[in-house]
Amino acid sequence: MLRQKKWIWVVPHGFQILSPSVTRLFCFCSSINNRPLVTVAICVHRAPGMANLLGLLKVKVIRGVKLVVRDSVASDPYLIVRHNNHKLKTRVVKKNVNPEWNEELTLSIVDAKEKIKIEVFDWDKFSFDDPMGVATIDIQPFVEAIKNLTAAAKAGGDLPPNNTIIRTILPCRDNDLADSSRIYFSNGKFLQDIVLRLRSVESGEVEIQLMWVDIP
Amino acid sequence: MLRQKKWIWVVPHGFQILSPSVTRLFCFCSSINNRPLVTVAICVHRAPGMANLLGLLKVKVIRGVKLVVRDSVASDPYLIVRHNNHKLKTRVVKKNVNPEWNEELTLSIVDAKEKIKIEVFDWDKFSFDDPMGVATIDIQPFVEAIKNLTAAAKAGGDLPPNNTIIRTILPCRDNDLADSSRIYFSNGKFLQDIVLRLRSVESGEVEIQLMWVDIP
Repeated sequence: MLRQKKWIWVVPHGFQILSPSVTRLFCFCSSINNRPLVTVAICVHRAPGMANLLGLLKVKVIRGVKLVVRDSVASDPYLIVRHNNHKLKTRVVKKNVNPEWNEELTLSIVDAKEKIKIEVFDWDKFSFDDPMGVATIDIQPFVEAIKNLTAAAKAGGDLPPNNTIIRTILPCRDNDLADSSRIYFSNGKFLQDIVLRLRSVESGEVEIQLMWVDIP
Repeated sequence: MLRQKKWIWVVPHGFQILSPSVTRLFCFCSSINNRPLVTVAICVHRAPGMANLLGLLKVKVIRGVKLVVRDSVASDPYLIVRHNNHKLKTRVVKKNVNPEWNEELTLSIVDAKEKIKIEVFDWDKFSFDDPMGVATIDIQPFVEAIKNLTAAAKAGGDLPPNNTIIRTILPCRDNDLADSSRIYFSNGKFLQDIVLRLRSVESGEVEIQLMWVDIP
């Protein structure tokens, strides 16, 4: 009887699994009580700069509002989040220009200066997907506010009281905000609510919530 | 010898010249020193609500920024301002998606609740002009701030000191502002600087300055 272990992706802190092409698979064969045992291990590479991992950023993609019509009467929108060579995707919501995604995508943040890029596409079965607008999110104010407050707390200070608004970012010509965006502390979490006005498209907004996960 | 007077459009306060179809032309013939004299008069109709004229609004259309390309490599943009059945136009700036109009268009304001509509078009010689985006301006905060301050001044108070910022309107989901918009008092004039992000188009901003002219 062959007892095969399940895949276990144990990745030490500061490492990340890269693309399959640079990831190596190893199999170890042994036996216990005369029964063969196959152990599978995966080799991960140390990612550049991962030693400087600042934390994890959960990007909750809530909904799209008044997105553009790309098919005959509607669109089949999905959203891509890009940051630091990572690309994460929501599911496709069929025939809906006001899609409710409510999906949480997680990014490793090593450089807060690098903006997050948001792209919305219309999924097409028989042709290339059509662009439905782009936007960027500057995460630097969010990460800096959190780092300052957590550093103060580690030095013996208190974290802010529940539901404290830490900072408000206003829409301006240099960002893609459609509305004032609040960075706040609620139920032990640092959050930022964001409404983006999509560029390079006739209409469309995207509602997003950022949540910070500190790495101990 | 026939001495013909030039057209003089003398319109009393509270009246306005309507469209030619409802405006009547009268000619009076007389003579002075045996020389024939023709006097031309124009009949104007009292416009509904003009008794409630709040003042004049000079809309300075400064420039367009990163307007959309509608012809092969550029556009020939002009801008229309609509308010209370009035329609005013800038000139066409040829082959330029960053046009400098610097034109002043004047509106009679009888209802501050009615928004100003801005439309940008690409002029075409041989076909219909192509739309290049729309936006609206809510003039109510501007007019109300001025009315309150001038009423206080008439009651014996002082007008604000020079270069006083009276109010700042922030961009939000319900307006078309691309940046914070300041209402201020400078050199005896009430002004508001506005940057509009055009809707229903892939890109484009319009810079506008409002100036209030009070009617004594």
